[in-house]
Amino acid sequence: MPEPRPVTFLTDFGYSDEYPGVCRLVMAGVDSRIRVIDVTHGIPPGDIRRGALALAASVRFSPPAVHLAVVDPGVGSSRRAVVLVCGEHHLVGPDNGLLMPAASVLGGIDAAFDVSTTPVRVAESDTFHGRDIFSPVAAELARGAAPGEIGEAVGFRELAELELPEPVIGREQVDAHALYVDQYGNVILNLHSEVLDGTFFIEGESVWLETSLQKLTVPLGRTFADVAAGEPVLYTDSTGFLAIAVNRGSAASRFGLGPDNSVRFTPVASAQ
Amino acid sequence: MPEPRPVTFLTDFGYSDEYPGVCRLVMAGVDSRIRVIDVTHGIPPGDIRRGALALAASVRFSPPAVHLAVVDPGVGSSRRAVVLVCGEHHLVGPDNGLLMPAASVLGGIDAAFDVSTTPVRVAESDTFHGRDIFSPVAAELARGAAPGEIGEAVGFRELAELELPEPVIGREQVDAHALYVDQYGNVILNLHSEVLDGTFFIEGESVWLETSLQKLTVPLGRTFADVAAGEPVLYTDSTGFLAIAVNRGSAASRFGLGPDNSVRFTPVASAQ
Amino acid sequence: MPEPRPVTFLTDFGYSDEYPGVCRLVMAGVDSRIRVIDVTHGIPPGDIRRGALALAASVRFSPPAVHLAVVDPGVGSSRRAVVLVCGEHHLVGPDNGLLMPAASVLGGIDAAFDVSTTPVRVAESDTFHGRDIFSPVAAELARGAAPGEIGEAVGFRELAELELPEPVIGREQVDAHALYVDQYGNVILNLHSEVLDGTFFIEGESVWLETSLQKLTVPLGRTFADVAAGEPVLYTDSTGFLAIAVNRGSAASRFGLGPDNSVRFTPVASAQ
Repeated sequence: MPEPRPVTFLTDFGYSDEYPGVCRLVMAGVDSRIRVIDVTHGIPPGDIRRGALALAASVRFSPPAVHLAVVDPGVGSSRRAVVLVCGEHHLVGPDNGLLMPAASVLGGIDAAFDVSTTPVRVAESDTFHGRDIFSPVAAELARGAAPGEIGEAVGFRELAELELPEPVIGREQVDAHALYVDQYGNVILNLHSEVLDGTFFIEGESVWLETSLQKLTVPLGRTFADVAAGEPVLYTDSTGFLAIAVNRGSAASRFGLGPDNSVRFTPVASAQ
Repeated sequence: MPEPRPVTFLTDFGYSDEYPGVCRLVMAGVDSRIRVIDVTHGIPPGDIRRGALALAASVRFSPPAVHLAVVDPGVGSSRRAVVLVCGEHHLVGPDNGLLMPAASVLGGIDAAFDVSTTPVRVAESDTFHGRDIFSPVAAELARGAAPGEIGEAVGFRELAELELPEPVIGREQVDAHALYVDQYGNVILNLHSEVLDGTFFIEGESVWLETSLQKLTVPLGRTFADVAAGEPVLYTDSTGFLAIAVNRGSAASRFGLGPDNSVRFTPVASAQ
Repeated sequence: MPEPRPVTFLTDFGYSDEYPGVCRLVMAGVDSRIRVIDVTHGIPPGDIRRGALALAASVRFSPPAVHLAVVDPGVGSSRRAVVLVCGEHHLVGPDNGLLMPAASVLGGIDAAFDVSTTPVRVAESDTFHGRDIFSPVAAELARGAAPGEIGEAVGFRELAELELPEPVIGREQVDAHALYVDQYGNVILNLHSEVLDGTFFIEGESVWLETSLQKLTVPLGRTFADVAAGEPVLYTDSTGFLAIAVNRGSAASRFGLGPDNSVRFTPVASAQ
């Protein structure tokens, strides 16, 4: 048999319980040669949006693989378990929007399959489909099974979408939201650098920033060290989103910002 | 040489220090082909019971393997370092009860060996036998060594047992304890679903629950989404234990429950 | 092609974000056969010293490998990205002192290369050189590239050193500092056991310990279980440093000790 494809693995299972480990063992039981590449298991519990963004950021750099992703607060309910085919990649997970941004990064969905009642299921719990359904499905795909052999075709239009907050971009004002805070306290915003072309962001060296806690001028920079330690900087992060950092500190703590909090930007001149 | 068996790896070493990594390097030094499958390193420090339950829950789904488990508050004392043979599986760890539930899941112990003074030891610290004894022993077993070559036979009766709290199951009342809380805040109880056959748990749709903080009626369900967001549910978890969850919330926080706390159940009719 | 060498992987990326996972995917994209051995990703953000000590403690037990280490608060600034050649080992990371103790453990640096403008770079962010520079460099080295093919030679004297606090060791008094606290709350001190030869530490069974919070007599022991549960003990840890533990408890909490806090030792007789 040919070498299996790798399985990338992202969940909100955390690191205290045996949950990711049991899934790895189920996959090893299907084929001991499968290489599991952990993306992260530290998605906040039930945070589909954070999981979706982390998955999209990683598949962009992945060789052809099966991407197993489980952030699944509706486990055991009527939500579908699905496989999405995107070129040489397969995405495996719950049909709750989690897989959609990654599918878009991979060039769109070629075919979709419902594996909720797959014959390769390994156990019968109603609360751990990561172990019982998604892991054996991912492992079978990794070693060469066709999705149609282990699931039933489903129309693209029936798939659940992911809702992301939209920024409001005006000539003199941009209203954004924090998407998530990373482990350094950097605040990633729902402003992709492309949408800022032609706005006041690219005209000056600083912008005027307003949060519920603070109002101040923030310089635009390339990286953290462009400002002194303890100073804030607005930069384009490694996934293309605008983000706020404090050099050698936490922007989230400094500005009291967490997921979904509002951030308003205006040109420095007009604000002061 | 034939392909080595995989080594599964569970500890309370945590994720901040290099301790699990050093053990992986010791095993790679014995045989670079050994595949290490992490179960978890997030067992609470010194919590032998939580480690034992996590290990038992994972070996159930494992192909034949060497299971390396280290939760070892007595490291360097007179407690033995042991290898337990269970069919095609080997369990490696301290003789403090940690390995016993897993041995039971694997069908019982065929032979036991004391490796405290094993010739394959790699270094001489008194506080890190995970690195110095358990990792090289696991790696040698994985690549085919017989336990008798690296340890001395020891009688089963001499092995330390694991003490678990026993529930009291009566006709009109069940007194249980919380075994542990998982990362979602689900509270796993010392009530295996089998012991509830014939009790009031399977007669009704709800039971009356009393903790030191709250008393209320809780519905029996299959999964979290069987109740509205924020509502509690009693369900059989993926390892067969009865557990309390709050849909999209934390039952541990809601009911103030942690390991060893008491939970009393009575029939809804008699309680109200 | 011959089997690639393993890549060991240590960062301060944490476990909540996809950052270590994306690096693993970049390496898998270079060569799917590369085995990545995680050391830890839980180094406190920006803590170069803790990263350097963890790296040094792990390379000591490593077979020949590429050691990828990223604790890089100066990412995107003028600090160099480097490869250090130490015998059969390669160290890859930022030139900020992080790699220096490991290089010393590995027998010193044979050659050094600047890879800041390496042709194998995979993307152009200014804030994630772990993904864009260090991972592809490590992967190319793992599969056999010569450092000179992907970087430019740089003199050893130009490399940034790591500054560690030095203890003051007198006849009747030793002034030390806490280097770090491990996950058990053990406090590791900047006193290598060798430097204590000939001092009062090896003459008695206890020493007198003073912190900003407490003053007390502490016994010298081999391991935690040498004292009763809840009691403190001074011991030589698995990396050769003197450390303070509390058996089945946290010395850091008990003595209010964190990185860089002072600890003074005197002989028991003179102090009381």
